[in-house]
Amino acid sequence: MNLENISANKSFGGWHRQYLHDSETLGCRMRFAVYLPPQAGANRRVPVLYWLSGLTCTDENFMQKAGAQRVAAELGLAIVAPDTSPRGAEAADDEAFDLGQGAGFYLNATQAPWNRHYRMYDYVSRELPALIEANFPVTEQRAVAGHSMGGHGALICALKRPQDYVSASAFSPICHPVNAPWGQKAFAAYLGEDRAAWEAWDASLLLKHAQQQLPLRVDIGLADSFLDVQLQPETLERAARDCGYPLELHRHAEYDHSYYFVASLIEEQLRFHARHLGL
Amino acid sequence: MNLENISANKSFGGWHRQYLHDSETLGCRMRFAVYLPPQAGANRRVPVLYWLSGLTCTDENFMQKAGAQRVAAELGLAIVAPDTSPRGAEAADDEAFDLGQGAGFYLNATQAPWNRHYRMYDYVSRELPALIEANFPVTEQRAVAGHSMGGHGALICALKRPQDYVSASAFSPICHPVNAPWGQKAFAAYLGEDRAAWEAWDASLLLKHAQQQLPLRVDIGLADSFLDVQLQPETLERAARDCGYPLELHRHAEYDHSYYFVASLIEEQLRFHARHLGL
Repeated sequence: MNLENISANKSFGGWHRQYLHDSETLGCRMRFAVYLPPQAGANRRVPVLYWLSGLTCTDENFMQKAGAQRVAAELGLAIVAPDTSPRGAEAADDEAFDLGQGAGFYLNATQAPWNRHYRMYDYVSRELPALIEANFPVTEQRAVAGHSMGGHGALICALKRPQDYVSASAFSPICHPVNAPWGQKAFAAYLGEDRAAWEAWDASLLLKHAQQQLPLRVDIGLADSFLDVQLQPETLERAARDCGYPLELHRHAEYDHSYYFVASLIEEQLRFHARHLGL
Repeated sequence: MNLENISANKSFGGWHRQYLHDSETLGCRMRFAVYLPPQAGANRRVPVLYWLSGLTCTDENFMQKAGAQRVAAELGLAIVAPDTSPRGAEAADDEAFDLGQGAGFYLNATQAPWNRHYRMYDYVSRELPALIEANFPVTEQRAVAGHSMGGHGALICALKRPQDYVSASAFSPICHPVNAPWGQKAFAAYLGEDRAAWEAWDASLLLKHAQQQLPLRVDIGLADSFLDVQLQPETLERAARDCGYPLELHRHAEYDHSYYFVASLIEEQLRFHARHLGL
């Protein structure tokens, strides 16, 4: 089996484990983490929440800081956290925090040198779920969520492949990357200067043409220092209003962009997914 | 006021904040973190749990990884997390993870060069509580808890100054440092080669002569790789049995030494303290 288990920690009666595997999609070795709740085993399969992390993160940030395992263990929900980009000497690298390693943006790059490895959208939406469903006691019911750059990733997974997910949510997502500095820098490098190619990866633009209205919840802090310039939630809200998409957008006074915010609201998001997953 | 606020994050309706101050006891600048639950304010003071962290940690590990704020916010309990040693160019330094920076062991060093700055016992049991009680909306009711080296710290605070605390608890503590490699290395450096001087800082030896039986809870994982050599909980248990000290020692199958264990059981420990604090 193309899976190397490198850590295991008992957590709230279930298990947190990290694995390495050779990704065909990305052409390099990748690490991810799985939390299996106590209900998962030989006699019971459980649904999976895919968590997509933000800039600079690995699989560890969410698993160590969000406090999600307590609620996942109660609900009987598995959580899978991939890394945020290809890694290692083979992957195209650079020193910026918002491009290259730690900053894959969950899209498929078309431009050299990035197009060799940076196909994180196919990785998180196709290869990884197939690997998980073949090797762990899980059902094919999937939910997707994420934070910041990973909130953008969760939104585009939900909007581009609604048939593959039951529900989606995001904390503090980049809602309109074609119009935000982080998004513009990454999209220009990964997709090229032709902005028409960017539109297929922008949540606010995709939402306008959604064929299927997946349940979608967004939580955002009003003391988030990236709110107006990078995140622009009002753009997503306006797109939803214009096309009658039932977006649940919750604004939270005084909360910021950190994992202190994610930890404070993760229970709400997990229970949102649980309702739609029938848990 | 000798307190510089350097961060603030809303968390579960309360506030996590970090501060810098000049410590008289340690003779250097120190950082600590405070979590104030939503109940704390101009009209209400709340009791404080002092959390002492393990080797290599700072004030951040517990605040970011334990998920304690959720329960503290429900109970109305403040949490204060000091650093684990003096820091900076002025403090005696070395490159080992288990001596010097990140490894203060919560005792008062008598040997050069450590005796200039390494007086963590006086810092966490006297200077820091006085500073907190003078500057935050808290009562003088204190509880103390910690992990690993910090579990040892919590035990010696509770056993040496039981009149200053309402209750004490520890995760995976070093229970008998005079007989464990981490303890022997640190005690030899900080206290000198005369082992008679070590006895005043060993929980299992102190417990035998306890004048006052503070409520005391210990949680320990049976898959902890440090269990037999470094932690030795059976020594503490035997001392408690021999002198009739009502120690609550809970062993947990399959759990390890990590914060995944602390996070899984922190609610139990906080509710233990809440019962004794009358919350």
